[in-house]
Formats: sequence, structure tokens, C-alpha cells
Amino acid sequence: MITTQEILKRAKEAAPSLSSATTEQKNEALYAMADALMAGAKDILEQNAIDMDRAKGTMPQVMLDRLLLTEDRIRDMADGVRAVADLPDPVGRILNEISGPDGLNIQKVSIPLGVIAIIYESRPNVTSDAAALCIKSGNACVLRGGKEAFYSANAITDALKEGLVAAGLSPDLLFLVQDTSRESATELMKAKGYVDLLIPRGGAGLIRSCVENATVECIKTGTGICHVYVDAAADIDKALNIVENAKASRPSVCNAEEALLVHRNIAPEFLPKLQTRLIDDRIAEGKPPVELRLDERAAEILKGDGSEGESDRWLTDAGENDFDTEFLDYILAVKVVDSVADAISHIGAHSTGHSDAIVTEDPKAAEAFVNGVDSAAVYVNASTRFTDGGQFGLGCEMGISTQKLHARGPMGLEEMTSYKYVIRGNGNIRS
Amino acid sequence: MITTQEILKRAKEAAPSLSSATTEQKNEALYAMADALMAGAKDILEQNAIDMDRAKGTMPQVMLDRLLLTEDRIRDMADGVRAVADLPDPVGRILNEISGPDGLNIQKVSIPLGVIAIIYESRPNVTSDAAALCIKSGNACVLRGGKEAFYSANAITDALKEGLVAAGLSPDLLFLVQDTSRESATELMKAKGYVDLLIPRGGAGLIRSCVENATVECIKTGTGICHVYVDAAADIDKALNIVENAKASRPSVCNAEEALLVHRNIAPEFLPKLQTRLIDDRIAEGKPPVELRLDERAAEILKGDGSEGESDRWLTDAGENDFDTEFLDYILAVKVVDSVADAISHIGAHSTGHSDAIVTEDPKAAEAFVNGVDSAAVYVNASTRFTDGGQFGLGCEMGISTQKLHARGPMGLEEMTSYKYVIRGNGNIRS
Repeated sequence: MITTQEILKRAKEAAPSLSSATTEQKNEALYAMADALMAGAKDILEQNAIDMDRAKGTMPQVMLDRLLLTEDRIRDMADGVRAVADLPDPVGRILNEISGPDGLNIQKVSIPLGVIAIIYESRPNVTSDAAALCIKSGNACVLRGGKEAFYSANAITDALKEGLVAAGLSPDLLFLVQDTSRESATELMKAKGYVDLLIPRGGAGLIRSCVENATVECIKTGTGICHVYVDAAADIDKALNIVENAKASRPSVCNAEEALLVHRNIAPEFLPKLQTRLIDDRIAEGKPPVELRLDERAAEILKGDGSEGESDRWLTDAGENDFDTEFLDYILAVKVVDSVADAISHIGAHSTGHSDAIVTEDPKAAEAFVNGVDSAAVYVNASTRFTDGGQFGLGCEMGISTQKLHARGPMGLEEMTSYKYVIRGNGNIRS
Repeated sequence: MITTQEILKRAKEAAPSLSSATTEQKNEALYAMADALMAGAKDILEQNAIDMDRAKGTMPQVMLDRLLLTEDRIRDMADGVRAVADLPDPVGRILNEISGPDGLNIQKVSIPLGVIAIIYESRPNVTSDAAALCIKSGNACVLRGGKEAFYSANAITDALKEGLVAAGLSPDLLFLVQDTSRESATELMKAKGYVDLLIPRGGAGLIRSCVENATVECIKTGTGICHVYVDAAADIDKALNIVENAKASRPSVCNAEEALLVHRNIAPEFLPKLQTRLIDDRIAEGKPPVELRLDERAAEILKGDGSEGESDRWLTDAGENDFDTEFLDYILAVKVVDSVADAISHIGAHSTGHSDAIVTEDPKAAEAFVNGVDSAAVYVNASTRFTDGGQFGLGCEMGISTQKLHARGPMGLEEMTSYKYVIRGNGNIRS
């Protein structure tokens, strides 16, 4: 088994050969990688079957479904790699150019970072997505996936490496770490001098570990405790649509809503309609109802309304941690607030800085919210579910940054580059 | 004495009031800060005299001179603050704007980071420079200076706070940490949730401590082991001018040259001329000569030349660490290399990634160097001394980043901002 240390050493040595590759060479490699995925489909499916066998009985059905590969899914992965090839090259852009004294020419030019390491969890398609984005942005790629997808990820990586070689590039530009213990993640976090950027994609525990342990440069992604605030001046129909879409259209993703704040003036009218929409209507339509975890004031409105119908069993009392939890499920914490300022202050204390929305027809409330909420994406009258590289015009996405330095929100190819100043003179000296 | 914890709490609370301030409010505050510096000059000079008294006998003359304030220097500081007011506002720029489906409008807008902490050393003028750049970029500012300038920095900070108040802003937007122990630096490094960006400006020890301890986001600045490589195809006159300028025009700064690499083919002609230029000529002109610390091959050329003149006592043998030392003095490590590839590889192993130069008339060697050297500023036929915010068109400088994320090279006002996505809809949901 190749050690993580050996992988890092070889990736670092190989990286310069890619940073100076032309756009055409990189695109040729990406097309060859896509072809190799298709050619290797039989092997990839066999290895995926091993992962599936090991996972059965130990993993919920929704996770099993994520882990499963099919011929169609492999074709989608290959198409994804080709789509990355068709994006503009983020390397070699002249970001600024100025002329100094005596003909001194100063260019600010985008360059690859070098070696990007990515720690991720179960979905096998992240392997090909991440590899393609790294290669296109001129970066060597060290992947450290979850152990539940180990065989699948290895088969995918082997195919992609074949593609690199077929296009005349070094196979050392792409590695999958073979050690899936917690120690190998820590090793990447501390690989100063080998890893130029570490992207942890995972739960709050992984991100916290990076903040505490990483000595390499790091971009924290993903954790999303996203809020929707329904203002006193909200259009109730828009609010119902937005809350349902943000919460229930795909609860397992990071841009899904986890907490709802409702202005006290609109709460008595809005909350009963919300109960109907998120519970009764959804049950009637055969969709999973949303459990509402209510703070005291919300409970007063919904539980004391005398209806005590069937749907009331989906109303529960919010516990201490419910406003700090990424449920990733059909669960929504609900709180009544006194003002837009209160909403902003609650979000400041509980949001992970991912995506937060206000629903209001009052332009003053909207602007107060936009200025007061310090999150990567701040919405007025739209669902938080739009936070996504594709929707934001990046054409792809390497994860969603919840930090403020370097990249914020969806990371595309440009966010996977740095820059250098190149200064050309004719013997210029500084006086 | 106010604790660092209390300072951080108050700065964090005050920051939003500045992030939403208009350009006019910020500029008015900066002009008021400059006026307050002039009005407080007498007190500042008195407090500076205390620092000078304490420092005498414990500090070399060059450091004492840096510490000393005069009326002229205070006027320069005030002028510096006014110059920052006259720079464009980096906040509120629309960096990108796209239209999504159904009238969804997505803007990427520059915003302040929040609270910026700066750890710096002795020069009192950094206090006003850093404060002005933070206020202009909409950030609250927590300064932690060296203890040798403690009284001066406090007097300057007090004056600047008066300026903030005179312009109607909160005095809590600017603090000087009162605890100058090493622990207070560590406290800033770990102030997650309070410090949005930490900028350590200092020696290698401080930077290393940040890499190892910081849990807040950090930009490493400053340390410069800069190289000049004199290629086989160099114009010797240009090379002599550039090497002397890069080494000796101001040896105490981070963009000064510390190591010289010379191609073996040109070394026998170039090195004796270099000895004349950096030692004999400078002695004759009454300037400090440059000590040349020679590797074995360079020593063979210079020491075996039979001249054994007076200037030979400035030739010494390079020790093990001389190619990894930021001398900040009239000392230059000299090494003979076999090729441009060797030079690139030596620089990759020993440079701090700040500024490195090639002197050559061969365009192929120049491009190999530009592509192969992974530093913030890479020069062809020009002195490394140009790496500076003013020279690079930024109008100011908060330090020179030697890392690759967020900011690389000189940091100006734009590098002291982040961005957020603001999405405005009319009830839009994602399908």
C-alpha cells in the first residue's frame, strides 16, 4: 500500500508539469479521462458491488442509494468530466497590467495553486468531479474519500489515471489516499510544504478538526444552517412557497433551510397556513411531512388553536440545540421574533454563514437584512436552494465556502487558482 | 487595564456600524483622525520620549532611529492617513452580476471582513497606517504592537480614536491591545468568532507561530529570502546594477536580495566584477561594503584569483544556514549553479516565495524562470526591490503576502475585503 507521505511527495513533484500545460493538453487529458471512465465501467461496477455488499445493513437506504453506481451514473460522471473540459481555462488570465517607470511591465497573472487535497465522504461521483476540476485548473489532486466508497473510488481513480497517461500526462497528478483512517485526514491537514490548498467537504466535525489542526491553507465548505425569515410585511403566498422549497425540495443538501424565523405580527396568520402546507397538504400528496420544532411562542399559536388534528403530531417542542442543528432531514426549527433586527441578530448567532433569506415586500426591511446578515449568500424573496455554482454562473462547483478569505459561496475554477506578479524590465533598478 | 477579551468583544460589536458606513463618512473620519494626530503631536512626542528612554542602551541605533518620532514624522503619518482617504472605496463594488430565471438577480458585492487584527513590531507609524487602511476598508481594527513602542502607539491610538469620535463613529472601531506579552498574540490567533482576519507582520518566528497556532483566518506576510539569478546569457552591467540595487539600496526590508545564484559559465567573469562593485567601489565611495558568503565553487573563483587584496576580507565561506537566512544586512550568500533549472530548483527549496529575479538576455531562460519559480513576484531583468504596493499600483500597502490564498504579494485595500452574493427575487423557488 502506498503511504500518504509517498503520495504527497509524488504529487508535489508532478504538479509543475501540469501548471505549465497548455489548455489543449489539459482538455485532451479530460476527454481521455472521460473515455477511460466509460472503458472501465465494468470494473468500476464490480468494485462498487463490493462497497455495496459491505454497506448493506450498516447504512440507511438513502445513503446506499448515493453509493450505488450504475452504467447511467458512470456515463453522467464521464459527461461531467467533458463538461469541465469545455469550461474556460482559469489559468494564465492577465488580471491586471500596469506600466512602471523606464518601461517596467507588471502583470498580475492567474496560476494554479499546486497540489489540492480534498477530504470528502461517500458519493463516488465526487471522485471524478473533483479530479476534473483540479486538472482543468492546473492542480495536482490528492483525494481522501470515505471508506464506505473505497473500492469504487479506487476503480474510478485508476480509470482516470489511465486517461491522464493516454494524454501524455503524469499519473502522479491524481491520487486517492489508501489509508482511510482518521489519521490520514490529519496527515493532510498538516502536510505543510506539500498541500497548497485543503478542501474539507463534510460535516461539522471535519470542519472543526480542520480549523483546529490544519497548518496548510484550507477552505471550509459546506455546513449549512440556513434561515428563512418571514417579515411582518411578507407576501404570505411567496413565503409559503419559499419555505417549502427551501426546506423540503431536497433536505439533504447544505443550502436547505434548517430554521424559520417569523415576525410576531404575521405569525398568527402565517403559522397555521404553514402547518397546512408543510404537513397536511404534503401528507395528502403522499410526500413526507415536515416536523416543526416550535419555540414557545410558535407553539402557543399552533398548539393552542383547538384544532388538535391528525397533523398536530408533527408539531414538537424545540429543544436547546434545535436552532444550531443541520438536520438534513424533513425537520424545521421555528421561532417567533419581534423585528427584523431580532432576526438579524439570531442569524448572526446561529447561522453557519452559508445562505439566509428574508421574505418581505418592505424594501427597508430587505436592505437592513441584506446589510446586516453576514453570510455568503443573502436572499430577498427567493429560496436558499439557489446557492450553487451552476445557478451562480460558475459552470461547476468544488464546494461552497462558508469562510470569508479567498473564496466565499460556491467555488468554481477561478477559486482554485492563485496569482503571481510577473515583472519584466530591461535592467530596471529602484531609486 | 482593558483585557484583550474585552477589546475583541467591543470591536466585534462596533464593526457592523462601520461596514454600513458611507464612503463620505469613512473619509470624514480619516480626515478627522489626521487632524487629531496633528493636534495630539505634543502628547505623542512626550510618550515617544518615554519609549526612547527605555530603549536606549538595549537597542541598536538603527532600531532606535525607527522608533524615534519627530514633528515631521507625525506630519507624515497624518498625510499618510489623508492619502488613504483619497483612495477609492473598496467596499460596495459589484464584482459580478447575473440574471437567473424568472427575474432572479444575483450580485457579487465586495464587503468588509469585519474585524482585522494586526500583530506588528516596532515602528510607531504602522499604528496609524494600519488603522487608516482598516477604517477605509470598513473594518474594525485591533492592533497589537511591540512593547518597545508601547507608549508611542497608545498615544497615537488615543489621538486616532478622538478623530473617530469627532466624525461621529464609535471609538471601539480601533483598539491597541494593552497586554504586550506573547500570550496576547496567541490570544488573537485563537480568537475564532471575533477576528475575521489576522495579519502577522514580523519575523519568521511570529509567522511560524501563526501557522501552528492560528484558528482564525490569517495572511502570512513579510519574510523575504529573495534571490537574484544571473544567467549564462546575462548582460553583465545590468546584472551588477540589479544585484547592487536589490542587496544594498535598503538591506533591512523584505524585498531585499539575500542570495545570489550565478551560472557557472558566466561566474568566472561576473564574480570578480561583483567583488569590485559590492566591496571595493563601495568602500571607495564611503558606503558599507557587502560581505559575500561564498559556496565552494564561488570561493574557488574569488579566493583563488591571486589578488588577495584588501577587499578579500569581505569574502567568507557560506555556512550551512546561509542560504536559508534573511540577513536584512549588508551580507549576500553566493552560489554557482549549472543551469536555469538548477537555479529554479534551488529557489524552490530555499525561497520564502516573496520576490525572485533572473537576469538574462535569453527569452527562453526568462520564460522557464517565470513559469518555474513559484513566488509572489517573479522578475526578469529588474530589481526585487520593486515589490511594493505603491509600485504595483495599489496606492497603499498592508504588508506583502507570501501565501497563495486570498492575497499574494502586496496587499492593498481590495485585499482587506471579502464579498457576499446578494440575490433578489420575487418569490423565486428552485425547481
